[in-house]
Amino acid sequence: MKISNRVLDMNFSPIRKLVPLAHNAEKKGIKVYSLNIGQPNVVTPDAFFEGLAKYDEKIVKYSDSQGIDILIDSFIKSYKKWDIELSKDEILITHGGSEAILFALMAICDPGDEVLIPEPFYSNYNSFAKIACAKVVPFLTTIENGFHLPPKEEIVKKITDKTRCILISNPVNPTGTIYTYDELKMLAEIAQEYDLYIISDEVYRQFVYDNIAYTSFMYMHDMLDRIILVDSISKHYSACGARIGLVASKNTKLIKHILKLCQSRLCVSTIEQCAAANLINTLDSYIEDVNTKYKSRRNLMYDYLKRIPGVVCDKPGGAFYMLVKLPVDNTEKFAEWLLTDYSYDNMTIMIAPASGFYATEDLGKNEVRLSFCTNIEDIENGMIVLTHAIEAYNSLEK
Amino acid sequence: MKISNRVLDMNFSPIRKLVPLAHNAEKKGIKVYSLNIGQPNVVTPDAFFEGLAKYDEKIVKYSDSQGIDILIDSFIKSYKKWDIELSKDEILITHGGSEAILFALMAICDPGDEVLIPEPFYSNYNSFAKIACAKVVPFLTTIENGFHLPPKEEIVKKITDKTRCILISNPVNPTGTIYTYDELKMLAEIAQEYDLYIISDEVYRQFVYDNIAYTSFMYMHDMLDRIILVDSISKHYSACGARIGLVASKNTKLIKHILKLCQSRLCVSTIEQCAAANLINTLDSYIEDVNTKYKSRRNLMYDYLKRIPGVVCDKPGGAFYMLVKLPVDNTEKFAEWLLTDYSYDNMTIMIAPASGFYATEDLGKNEVRLSFCTNIEDIENGMIVLTHAIEAYNSLEK
Repeated sequence: MKISNRVLDMNFSPIRKLVPLAHNAEKKGIKVYSLNIGQPNVVTPDAFFEGLAKYDEKIVKYSDSQGIDILIDSFIKSYKKWDIELSKDEILITHGGSEAILFALMAICDPGDEVLIPEPFYSNYNSFAKIACAKVVPFLTTIENGFHLPPKEEIVKKITDKTRCILISNPVNPTGTIYTYDELKMLAEIAQEYDLYIISDEVYRQFVYDNIAYTSFMYMHDMLDRIILVDSISKHYSACGARIGLVASKNTKLIKHILKLCQSRLCVSTIEQCAAANLINTLDSYIEDVNTKYKSRRNLMYDYLKRIPGVVCDKPGGAFYMLVKLPVDNTEKFAEWLLTDYSYDNMTIMIAPASGFYATEDLGKNEVRLSFCTNIEDIENGMIVLTHAIEAYNSLEK
Repeated sequence: MKISNRVLDMNFSPIRKLVPLAHNAEKKGIKVYSLNIGQPNVVTPDAFFEGLAKYDEKIVKYSDSQGIDILIDSFIKSYKKWDIELSKDEILITHGGSEAILFALMAICDPGDEVLIPEPFYSNYNSFAKIACAKVVPFLTTIENGFHLPPKEEIVKKITDKTRCILISNPVNPTGTIYTYDELKMLAEIAQEYDLYIISDEVYRQFVYDNIAYTSFMYMHDMLDRIILVDSISKHYSACGARIGLVASKNTKLIKHILKLCQSRLCVSTIEQCAAANLINTLDSYIEDVNTKYKSRRNLMYDYLKRIPGVVCDKPGGAFYMLVKLPVDNTEKFAEWLLTDYSYDNMTIMIAPASGFYATEDLGKNEVRLSFCTNIEDIENGMIVLTHAIEAYNSLEK
């Protein structure tokens, strides 16, 4: 019986592949610090649980396919703080940011169409493209350049008559890079010159450090019909498991077609939507606290990394990730070895090998993504482990 | 800018198209009875809300992509009551039955592959196939034959080298038909002879009346590697808005590939999964009560329909739908007219024109789907309206 090429071509999550190895290490009594995943350890705001408690329907009914009114209204209101004007017919609530990206790709790509993405990128972009039968065409950003965009000519030479869009995250997962206004402007120009959409995944928008100026693609007022905004409460409010996201665009014709995709799956979880709608009542101090936390965690991690001989990394301006070059031959093997053969003071770490964040084969082989959304003690212990582990790994006879 | 052919080819929900017309009627002070949708009016079991209240995490975290353990275990346990043996690695929790069907199609169909479906069928099957870039190939069941399956030769003549599966619901949405053991056995034979999968959507399994024998495809023990079971709590427990479903198969290789699709969207709403896991504690009397209710509603609706001259309908054995032939020229026009131009005693009805349930053009033009999952007074008033409306509509000068 046939299995589709679509799924055969897809990879198992490179992060989740290590999970059983971590479980085995834990069984041996080793403490495993997870620096591999983007699951924040900060508490979800009270407002969410208050919203949850308010739900008092006796029948858990289907809600509207586009999302419930109060949730859409709450997003409209919160975008105003970002000087982003959106109206009700420009927003569709989705099952997390994941569904938002998938639906956007499905609405603009037919099989064989191409999606331009700066690499390294969030590895599920690859999965979404494959599910939509589209092809990822990467253009390279490098650690030496702080993962900022290459010159325009490097990007446009990847464009064919099959190219439909540029897909970016900003701040970038997995690098923490914040694109400058000029970089976005360049992408905007490319989109206009080559008749492309831009899918702008801004789920880390809230996390920008060091007073770096943040530009949303929604500020490119002369081309908003090309912009598809993807957002989510997952990271902003540490509510990853709620699966509440949105896709928005001033291009209401496109939104209307995406609504068909929403209608096909009927609705997003009604109760979680009600809870999420109350997040608008989150205190500003919550966001400020979280930002302060992440900034100090980033500083700590960066300070440790700078002291490890041979490590190359850039201090990220946003999100809660760093893409780091390690002085090891192969970070996939290294990540496995950390869980199967190594411990320091009965501790080890889980890290995300960076090859999963590249579409081009053989890239990222000596890079890893480290998350600093876990607590400060874990980061400190994790960095101590990493420091010793690199030395131990490189002194192995291989 | 391009909109994909995929979404251009999709239809807006034929049911939801009538919603604004119903709103207008209500604004005019007319009471609109909704006999068009499958939103049960019975309360969700207490067990669900108890499960919800038990959730006391401080961080709403991602859960495992395959679903949370206690929910999978609860399904395993409840399947035992149906003599269906499933284990943990054979079940994936999905975002409603909708995602289960979509993922199943995506895992077995590449663009251009064909899906065999008896028509009339749940209209979103069409959407799922289009999203997966597969092609629906219908074979006809008729009201005169109680929407039972045609002879084997009628079905096999639709099979090509592109056919990958037969997709059925049983009990059938939109007809309420229960397939006999012999019918399923015939499909099973076809699947084996032509190397096809069977996607068996059993979300109405709980609702079977008049002691009709129910056969699940999971009882076809000699071919379980071909069977993909789709299930959901939406209808069983009147929890449509929770979006908790599952896809299951004894074909663990296939399940492993579908897991990649699950991983791409990270997880299903964590809190709703916790609530759903507690549904295993629902009293048997809940299910019995609901069945008794639906049965008496069905009887009432059927008794009214039989008295309307020119109406053709079969008493459905399951689910909560009837597909009914009305003595009107075009049920799409009739459904609109009911909302825009008609009222009886200041009441009117919303009905689902059946053309949306057929893939073959021009079929179902004088049929409608009526739901009897609403309360008995609404059904009674709705049937009174329908009786008068048909007469009034046919005496119009057109």
